Amino acid sequence: MGKAITLQEQDYSKWYNDIVVEADLADHSAVRGCMVIKPHGYAIWEKMQAALDKMFKDTGHSNAYFPLFIPKSLFEAEEKNAEGFAKECAVVTHYRLKTDPANKGKLIVDPDAKLEEELVVRPTSEAIIWNTYKGWIQSYRDLPLLINQWANVVRWEMRTRLFLRTAEFLWQEGHTAHATEKEAIEEAERMLDVYADFAENWLAMPVIKGLKTANERFAGADETYCIEALMQDGKALQAGTSHFLGQNFAKAFDVKFANKEGKLDYVWATSWGVSTRLMGALIMSHSDNKGLVIPPKLAPTHVVIVPIHKTEEGLKQITEYALTLKKNLNAKNISVKYDDRDSQRPGWKFAEYELKGMPVRIAIGERDLAAGTVEIARRDTLTKEVVKMEEVEKYVEELLEKIQSNLYTKALERMNAATYKVDTYEDFKKTLDEKPGFILAHWDGTPESEEKIKEETKATIRCIPLNNPKETGVCIYSGKSSTQRVLFARAY
Amino acid sequence: MGKAITLQEQDYSKWYNDIVVEADLADHSAVRGCMVIKPHGYAIWEKMQAALDKMFKDTGHSNAYFPLFIPKSLFEAEEKNAEGFAKECAVVTHYRLKTDPANKGKLIVDPDAKLEEELVVRPTSEAIIWNTYKGWIQSYRDLPLLINQWANVVRWEMRTRLFLRTAEFLWQEGHTAHATEKEAIEEAERMLDVYADFAENWLAMPVIKGLKTANERFAGADETYCIEALMQDGKALQAGTSHFLGQNFAKAFDVKFANKEGKLDYVWATSWGVSTRLMGALIMSHSDNKGLVIPPKLAPTHVVIVPIHKTEEGLKQITEYALTLKKNLNAKNISVKYDDRDSQRPGWKFAEYELKGMPVRIAIGERDLAAGTVEIARRDTLTKEVVKMEEVEKYVEELLEKIQSNLYTKALERMNAATYKVDTYEDFKKTLDEKPGFILAHWDGTPESEEKIKEETKATIRCIPLNNPKETGVCIYSGKSSTQRVLFARAY
Repeated sequence: MGKAITLQEQDYSKWYNDIVVEADLADHSAVRGCMVIKPHGYAIWEKMQAALDKMFKDTGHSNAYFPLFIPKSLFEAEEKNAEGFAKECAVVTHYRLKTDPANKGKLIVDPDAKLEEELVVRPTSEAIIWNTYKGWIQSYRDLPLLINQWANVVRWEMRTRLFLRTAEFLWQEGHTAHATEKEAIEEAERMLDVYADFAENWLAMPVIKGLKTANERFAGADETYCIEALMQDGKALQAGTSHFLGQNFAKAFDVKFANKEGKLDYVWATSWGVSTRLMGALIMSHSDNKGLVIPPKLAPTHVVIVPIHKTEEGLKQITEYALTLKKNLNAKNISVKYDDRDSQRPGWKFAEYELKGMPVRIAIGERDLAAGTVEIARRDTLTKEVVKMEEVEKYVEELLEKIQSNLYTKALERMNAATYKVDTYEDFKKTLDEKPGFILAHWDGTPESEEKIKEETKATIRCIPLNNPKETGVCIYSGKSSTQRVLFARAY
Repeated sequence: MGKAITLQEQDYSKWYNDIVVEADLADHSAVRGCMVIKPHGYAIWEKMQAALDKMFKDTGHSNAYFPLFIPKSLFEAEEKNAEGFAKECAVVTHYRLKTDPANKGKLIVDPDAKLEEELVVRPTSEAIIWNTYKGWIQSYRDLPLLINQWANVVRWEMRTRLFLRTAEFLWQEGHTAHATEKEAIEEAERMLDVYADFAENWLAMPVIKGLKTANERFAGADETYCIEALMQDGKALQAGTSHFLGQNFAKAFDVKFANKEGKLDYVWATSWGVSTRLMGALIMSHSDNKGLVIPPKLAPTHVVIVPIHKTEEGLKQITEYALTLKKNLNAKNISVKYDDRDSQRPGWKFAEYELKGMPVRIAIGERDLAAGTVEIARRDTLTKEVVKMEEVEKYVEELLEKIQSNLYTKALERMNAATYKVDTYEDFKKTLDEKPGFILAHWDGTPESEEKIKEETKATIRCIPLNNPKETGVCIYSGKSSTQRVLFARAY
């Protein structure tokens, strides 16, 4: 156990960092802006991957893998995309090191091994993938092409934060090709729904689905859909995006298909992604001053059993019961750790599993054994209950479902309570400072007003919610007329 | 369907490339030496990953993720390792592109964004991981540390071949830390056994376990264990390696631990890895002139059902039966594809599934339906049998096991038949040219003889087999005395 965790109410940002490091999720590395994802953090990411991967496959997608490097000439082919990412590209210029003649045991970049064409380390893979699709797509029979890739990407960020913004991160990126505009838009919306489903039913995190404004669109997209979540401190977090790319990449890479009538046309495209940023979303949706709280469906281990014994004989009896219980819970797909280490005391273990976010803790003492009961503590509410041994399995099974739904309900109530309708710019600024959260306000639809509001308040339009009710009003900034409210917030 | 596949006996190397490309496993990309792994190839790799990952977890390992980039100063810390990989390192020198003032729409590397210290794209991760372990290991309580990483790595190869040798490849690398030399050696041997188990029981590929000679050791290792397999053309393929790293990396990165008595000592290390190269091993162990052959345990889909109908009513009846069969086979964990596309004829489909390596094909015609039978073809032997409908499920279940074990037996017989004991250098050279395979021959144990043999014959010592029987003899090259035979071959 390391140092104490900063209290949320004292310094939320420091609290976040303490949770990430102390709960063994990730740590800074020797490489500027890059993190190490530690085993406990990676195990949660693996659960996220497995759930998402199944959802992608259930919606007809296959996985594939494309090169890490993109030759500069391909990278720059789709101009808007290239322009959008140029400022954060790591670039490989040489392919060899050699021993430093002036400095024994040291290496220098070999100047004779300069690449003819520089290679960009992928910040996103549209360019290399659409260059490949050119060879794969000839006719309507090759469409739709529904592919996903799990990969690392690099975006050279100046100000980084563990999981939320790192120079290298892990993600999945879907890249699909379609015969018609309609199908591509349907695909972009379908994957947005998949992300929202995952956020709500796995992360236990409510989200608002919407469209980005032109200013906030993915570079190279005609339309960007997103899911936006509200963190405990009232700041928004973009949790996933799905892009309708029109024919932009097809035109940049000359990808045409022959339709049933034999006529050639450019292919329509989407791309969509979520990343290890979701780990940050998980932390800032549910955790507390004791440590991490993990929704049971994403917990690498669901239950820890801790024996509390005075005698060796007592331990033996507890162990016998605990291992049977473990086996029976395993049979219900509940994963269990029995922690009978004698190097640590029960109180230390309790604190450790609270820190790491274990959803359920079962403590068994010698007196419990005699009484035929165990003590079951739940991580989300930090409450305990004494349960009869014969009821434990059913109790735990139901408790895990209860915790999952309780976390969602709490997060939803928090989000609803922190969503404000505001009608004047004064009120807007006051709300931002005094009651951080989502603000629904009228906007005149111009990039100019959006930009000014951002400059003056640091709040951005998170999205234009889908199925937004039409409502006549005036823009909080310009006073010009508006037909709907959009979602503002300060964001991560 | 693309062009015909070159016959194995005509040009094995061309045949290999045809299989990779035509069976949709992988393809060359626009990036020199980098491949695109296509959905069918990636699906097989995912099956390999799942099986290996479970074996790693069952032996106590956790997954984690470390940065793609290694600062040059860390990379060069372990001198032998650095020297071994320096010549094939991709190096990132800049972190930004900018628009070319002389060339609208084009980008150039921004000279103002030169990194203070160059970053090596990991060719292997010992350096970055041991630099991290320094912060994780203080006492014997932190040991053993058993971590694995699934990642991409880059080694700038001049002559590349799909899956076998590519500039970027996917792999897993285990990196463990131990309190004693003995434990580290046990770990290196345990993971070698895991690899051999996987090769034999999943890939259906017999392997020889052994030790590399000093010449062939991993750069930075005290001992390299390996599994060596024999491909159909008589060339060897190194399929996995496990390294005992001694205290080399602990010393280079100053990683010490306090033992139970409080005394400080350097930590002992292992690392071990297998890569997408195993896809090449799979292809060259079992495939034929019709296409890929996949061992059932690694096949993304086990069974394809193809309807052969003359009437719509016939198709309807076949479909009804096929979907029930599919459901029943699914319940036995057998994955099934029902291919009722009307855009292709049955004969075309048969050829396509043979090319792609589908283990079992079930054809159902209208007359079959009337007779209560189906025709079942197995990919490994290309034989067919008529089976009564009520026996199909059991038949298929047993057939898949039969195919798996038949592939292994055939490969083992092939390897045994192509393993020769040779006692003179003349015979050695003749055998290499006329009967390519494994050669067991005496060697005097010197790097000089090993080097000369390699120069003169292109054959290398693949390994000193574990548990090698002692046998007095004379080195085929030097005539000096020798105590055991070692395994020679020309290799991929």
